Amino acid sequence: MPSAYGNMTAGELDEAIASLESEAAELKARGLSLDMARGKPSPEQVALSLPILDVLTSSADLVDEGIDASNYGCPDGLPSARALGANLLGVDPSQVIAAGSSSLELMYSLVSKAFSTGVRGDAPWSEQGPVRFLCPAPGYDRHFAITQHFGIENVPVRMRGDGPDMDEVERLVEGDPSVKGIWCVPKYQNPTGVTFSDEVVRRFVSMRPAARDFRIFWDNAYCVHDLVEPGETVMNVFDALALADVTDRVYEFASTSKVTLPGSGLAWLAASPSDIADVKATLSLERVCPNKIVQLAHVRYLKDVAGITEHMAEQAKVLRPRFDLVERKLSEGLGGLGVATWTHPKGGYFVSFDGPAGSAKAIVALAAQLGVKLTPAGATWPGGVDPDDTNIRIAPTYPSLEDLSAALDVFVVCVRLVSARLARDARG
Amino acid sequence: MPSAYGNMTAGELDEAIASLESEAAELKARGLSLDMARGKPSPEQVALSLPILDVLTSSADLVDEGIDASNYGCPDGLPSARALGANLLGVDPSQVIAAGSSSLELMYSLVSKAFSTGVRGDAPWSEQGPVRFLCPAPGYDRHFAITQHFGIENVPVRMRGDGPDMDEVERLVEGDPSVKGIWCVPKYQNPTGVTFSDEVVRRFVSMRPAARDFRIFWDNAYCVHDLVEPGETVMNVFDALALADVTDRVYEFASTSKVTLPGSGLAWLAASPSDIADVKATLSLERVCPNKIVQLAHVRYLKDVAGITEHMAEQAKVLRPRFDLVERKLSEGLGGLGVATWTHPKGGYFVSFDGPAGSAKAIVALAAQLGVKLTPAGATWPGGVDPDDTNIRIAPTYPSLEDLSAALDVFVVCVRLVSARLARDARG
Repeated sequence: MPSAYGNMTAGELDEAIASLESEAAELKARGLSLDMARGKPSPEQVALSLPILDVLTSSADLVDEGIDASNYGCPDGLPSARALGANLLGVDPSQVIAAGSSSLELMYSLVSKAFSTGVRGDAPWSEQGPVRFLCPAPGYDRHFAITQHFGIENVPVRMRGDGPDMDEVERLVEGDPSVKGIWCVPKYQNPTGVTFSDEVVRRFVSMRPAARDFRIFWDNAYCVHDLVEPGETVMNVFDALALADVTDRVYEFASTSKVTLPGSGLAWLAASPSDIADVKATLSLERVCPNKIVQLAHVRYLKDVAGITEHMAEQAKVLRPRFDLVERKLSEGLGGLGVATWTHPKGGYFVSFDGPAGSAKAIVALAAQLGVKLTPAGATWPGGVDPDDTNIRIAPTYPSLEDLSAALDVFVVCVRLVSARLARDARG
Repeated sequence: MPSAYGNMTAGELDEAIASLESEAAELKARGLSLDMARGKPSPEQVALSLPILDVLTSSADLVDEGIDASNYGCPDGLPSARALGANLLGVDPSQVIAAGSSSLELMYSLVSKAFSTGVRGDAPWSEQGPVRFLCPAPGYDRHFAITQHFGIENVPVRMRGDGPDMDEVERLVEGDPSVKGIWCVPKYQNPTGVTFSDEVVRRFVSMRPAARDFRIFWDNAYCVHDLVEPGETVMNVFDALALADVTDRVYEFASTSKVTLPGSGLAWLAASPSDIADVKATLSLERVCPNKIVQLAHVRYLKDVAGITEHMAEQAKVLRPRFDLVERKLSEGLGGLGVATWTHPKGGYFVSFDGPAGSAKAIVALAAQLGVKLTPAGATWPGGVDPDDTNIRIAPTYPSLEDLSAALDVFVVCVRLVSARLARDARG
């Protein structure tokens, strides 16, 4: 279907471009400095969690199920912190490690371990010749950066409406023993907001990987991050594994980084008992113990899964107007033009936007000139290479509603102007 | 010089052994369960730091030099936390990264980085064929375990009274490009308590390593851990480097783990500006940011180097009686027998004990039978192999004075009995 610009006469199109250029000039003259690039909670969200700082005082009981949180020990994390993670992810506490503030650090640590010393006694990836990792795209740039850092070849796989393209995933994982892993965000995927369907989860657990040391990095970063009630649910991957009679397949991650204070919480790893034992052996060399005071404060503050859900419902009240504003501004500004599509997520932190082929870099560059910082075009693809140059990740959580509104106005003008110019270029 | 047991007649020696065996049997009958193995602060020490939990509340100002500690960002650590570390180590804040609770984790991370992706653009150690690391011994088992984990060959170098055997260090570092690093604890070394002399520090910075990617892992774990006033001082290694006109040589580490709450504080890395830039590039992939709330609480609580010194003086009051008790019990029980020597540290966490050749494993095993857990014999040597089987690390900080006293009584009997039996065995 041709876009509104494609349907215009040459004269109409020139006129439209001239008008948009003058709008852009006006916006530029405002000297804006806005940021819609960061998947970062807003100050209002963070404020909801500040009472966690009041939970532990010098007179508090710092013993957790017999463990003194104020001294060394307990490298796998406080018992109650492991139990909270286990309940959250629906697994047994013996399958869970509670670590420091960053789940990304756990992921890095596991890739590093596999690269340097191997998975469960298999040869280190560094000694297995070229090694590859599947990267559902659009996806999360920090995931891709980790594997890239170790010289692992990142292989993009298209994200669909129900998860990654599983035909392609199965073909690569089952056919190629150099494929050692895949990055997944199964719920409210970054940036598409897609929650993997049950069918996709079942196919993930039922695959027969060519490599014994293949692992799925299941980053359940947005497991409790619903914007609406009820949110979406993703099938419990360990239940699915049990049904398929498969054990050592998945490293699952979660953290409190977008639940309490970003960067100052705890992260969890869940895996099969044998995989957990393998990981513990390395983790125990890596550090004496995680910060158990932080873990204790979190358990006492959040209490249980119901406590987390309640807390997240308060955060959703802060976030929903921002996502509603994105939807309204994009619909009003771009609806019916036939130049763009975008996602309508029920949770998570992003809206994934696709403009015309060859537009994303130009839109992001133009927005920067007009004072609006966006996630770099291409960032959602491994190596920064979006094959069609269409995708832009919109991160509406951090700015105030007022700033977000202004930034979206700029964004809409940029999309229209770049699309119109592309339509003109297409006429040769 | 023969020991008291060596000077006895056969009959006297048999009698002495019988008497010690009956003492041992009596001790065993008591069913003790004591632990003198762990380099862990005592609960009394930890209690001194509990007010740190009162420093930050939900109404506190969480902004540090323009950085919001309650949200993502600032991967190198809070400005004031970096400044505190810089003042502590006597370097410029630009040379310092403030990280999570564990300096061991930083060390692991740097070995891992060098192994996987290399130091400053040089080939990864994993691709350079066999790689070696020097391990001053007796030394710290967790250091040795890290390099061993990566398949690096740990090469022991004898500790002397003023630091490692520098003739041997220079010979290996200058002559062998496969030697990539050395583990050092320059002040109150674990376990000897030795503080490196100025001459040793000067030789460290003046060496001409055969490998460009050689680094000294300078773990200044006990930099503020004096037991007496005045404590010992180690020359500022970066000042020494500057005098020698050498730059990229040292990774220095320190942490608050034995200053505030063990495992729940922050750690610092100091290095040359180019090395810091190299490390930052990896660290920024590894995690979004360290726990800045913990860092802010530390800075507000400890304030400055004077604040740390004052705080540590209080801890010394708790620790000194324990170290005095070790000295008294060992002197009373073993002095004049000619079977053992031990250190008289002015700081740090350990007393290093040496019995007769071939005695350490037997002493530790016997003590375990009598209900006293000691650090495994050999743990202070890479691979767990103490060539003379003499060294035992005594960790007197954690037990109460009463428990420590009972444990030392057992230890003395074990040393005497094992020494007497060795003297008898020596007669054939």
